[in-house]
Amino acid sequence: MRTTVGIIGGGPAGLLLARLLHRTGIDCVVLESRTRAYVEQRQRAGMLEQGTVDALRECGAADRLGAEGLTHHGIELRFDRERHRIDFPALTGGRTVTIYAQTEIVKDLVALQLAEGPPLLFEAEAIAVEKPESDSPVVRFLHEGREQTLSCAYVVGCDGSHGIAHDAFPAGASRTYAHDYPYSWLGILADVPPSCEELIYARGPGGFALHSMRSPSVSRLYVQVPNGTDADDWPDERIWDELDERFAIDGDWRLERGLITAKSVTPMRSYVHEPMSHGRLFLAGDAAHIVPPTGAKGLNLAVSDVRVLAHCFAEFHRTGSTRLLDRYSELCLNRVWQATRFSYDMTRMLHVHPGGDAFDSRIQLARLRRITASRHAAAELAANYTGLPLAL
Amino acid sequence: MRTTVGIIGGGPAGLLLARLLHRTGIDCVVLESRTRAYVEQRQRAGMLEQGTVDALRECGAADRLGAEGLTHHGIELRFDRERHRIDFPALTGGRTVTIYAQTEIVKDLVALQLAEGPPLLFEAEAIAVEKPESDSPVVRFLHEGREQTLSCAYVVGCDGSHGIAHDAFPAGASRTYAHDYPYSWLGILADVPPSCEELIYARGPGGFALHSMRSPSVSRLYVQVPNGTDADDWPDERIWDELDERFAIDGDWRLERGLITAKSVTPMRSYVHEPMSHGRLFLAGDAAHIVPPTGAKGLNLAVSDVRVLAHCFAEFHRTGSTRLLDRYSELCLNRVWQATRFSYDMTRMLHVHPGGDAFDSRIQLARLRRITASRHAAAELAANYTGLPLAL
Repeated sequence: MRTTVGIIGGGPAGLLLARLLHRTGIDCVVLESRTRAYVEQRQRAGMLEQGTVDALRECGAADRLGAEGLTHHGIELRFDRERHRIDFPALTGGRTVTIYAQTEIVKDLVALQLAEGPPLLFEAEAIAVEKPESDSPVVRFLHEGREQTLSCAYVVGCDGSHGIAHDAFPAGASRTYAHDYPYSWLGILADVPPSCEELIYARGPGGFALHSMRSPSVSRLYVQVPNGTDADDWPDERIWDELDERFAIDGDWRLERGLITAKSVTPMRSYVHEPMSHGRLFLAGDAAHIVPPTGAKGLNLAVSDVRVLAHCFAEFHRTGSTRLLDRYSELCLNRVWQATRFSYDMTRMLHVHPGGDAFDSRIQLARLRRITASRHAAAELAANYTGLPLAL
Repeated sequence: MRTTVGIIGGGPAGLLLARLLHRTGIDCVVLESRTRAYVEQRQRAGMLEQGTVDALRECGAADRLGAEGLTHHGIELRFDRERHRIDFPALTGGRTVTIYAQTEIVKDLVALQLAEGPPLLFEAEAIAVEKPESDSPVVRFLHEGREQTLSCAYVVGCDGSHGIAHDAFPAGASRTYAHDYPYSWLGILADVPPSCEELIYARGPGGFALHSMRSPSVSRLYVQVPNGTDADDWPDERIWDELDERFAIDGDWRLERGLITAKSVTPMRSYVHEPMSHGRLFLAGDAAHIVPPTGAKGLNLAVSDVRVLAHCFAEFHRTGSTRLLDRYSELCLNRVWQATRFSYDMTRMLHVHPGGDAFDSRIQLARLRRITASRHAAAELAANYTGLPLAL
């Protein structure tokens, strides 16, 4: 098989890139190792920056998002049994965010791509990228029981942190920066309407908790747990009790309980792979960087990467110049590090650090209190949360 | 001896408090353990918030400060061989800071107090505060070769972190929060005009460096060094070379060298003693809290404490009500914790953390870069640096 841009990975990054390239007239092929059913069920993020919504809209993939997405005008911070609202439009000149699950974005993009192209192969497992420095890199992959090759002018790895694309960087051609956090999130999906219209980020006595939602009838809730926690050690009752304690405020508020339909533990990690390109191989999304979910930045960073990359490819297609493609990594990395910093700060501000002392707790509380007292501090949070501009 | 307010410690906190009380008509006595010559030579801070200048002016102690103090309209941040200016008036609606050495403030206040009162005893070493819960607490002190007592209606400990006032809090009546930083500052005084009109906070490859000044002809410079560093291991040449490297930028700039007249190593510590009062005993300044010098907050916090305390005493004097005195600790502590947080953040952002990894360095650089890119982030720094408002 032959194409201009070989895309490894059929998550939101790969699918959106395919869509953007297709509309520019650049042919590409997407290889996804899993089945369609699997990728359409994979539970992931669901908080979209305005730029992410705009990108989906521009490529015609936002009909259902427009109808079903929930626009959020702020978040709530809870600590010391108090509640404080961060008003995004007031602090950012009108910006909002949208709740729409990543699985739904994937469904929308898969349906569009299967209807209109470009080619999307499921159960096509990439095993290696070869000759990324050459004019004709090749992706070797397993599909329909045999090994096949995709010959490309360019290859884009959208295959996540466990993917194979970044393995094609030769030793010494890149460097990774990583940080593991000493806690995890126990997340649940529950068949109960959200207890609050907006997200609540709480620093309770036992640690962090997040109130979120997937839809008007499904709540998504998280509690900070120690690393290595087995979800089975947390019966439903224990989860609800712990959530009650962490969200508790002085005054009336009640977390509604419902049937828990999914329960899983996620460790927290930051990771950046620099540079994000080598020869004719580009990395986008989780293949290049991971953030802890506290800042809701993972999906949005993946989308901003592919927007930048599609823009670079469009210039190449129009002019034949690789000027922008050569700068892809540089164009992405400042924003990537800002999102990494923001995710790190949000995480460190809201979680109870195991082994942390009373001084650390007071610093965290002073930080939270400052955000609620200073318009500049609140505006910084709002600007980062709703998304920094792209370097285009 | 008998007085209304017994003040332990003749540093800027104790002397300014005495001045403010005296002007309100409240009698007090200041006990200072050292000689006049000693306290007038003690090298300390020299960056005054506007509120600190205002307080000195209001009590008639700002004649020389007005003539000799250097008004600063910003600071410079250096990292990655770049320079970035933080413009305080533009970011804060006109606020500035003033360079005037703490030793000079002490000289001015001592001279005023010896001329006009209230009583100021040198070589009067407080050894204990007794019965702080009673209506008549007593300060026992050594003076002129014998133990004496000062009977008071109230006692204020302005005797620093190694003082004896906080020892009078009974077990369980208070709690301390502390953090030791894994580095120190090697500071020098040099007989050379400052190489730049404003302060420079630099994060160089080898760590933090600060360019500051005491006067138009005396530079004050600091380099981050490991804890336990012996100043004798740093010959003058080595200090200048290290400063050159940490302040280096792409472009023309040169650090002028001169005769080094003082050299000392200071460890970095954060410390807060809560509450700041017990019965009729109050703590102010370093007796209640220590910050690392990076945010230039120590002296300013001491001054804001005594401004609050003088205000509380004035209400008591006017109305006989202890309503505000009873709230003294609460009125101070939010601002104390905000300054503690700011000092911690400035310190952590600018120092190279021993044992820190490449990820930490990238986060620090992203934080510095954000301050130079975001008006809100820069304004937050400027607001904290020039001083948060008092809770009065």
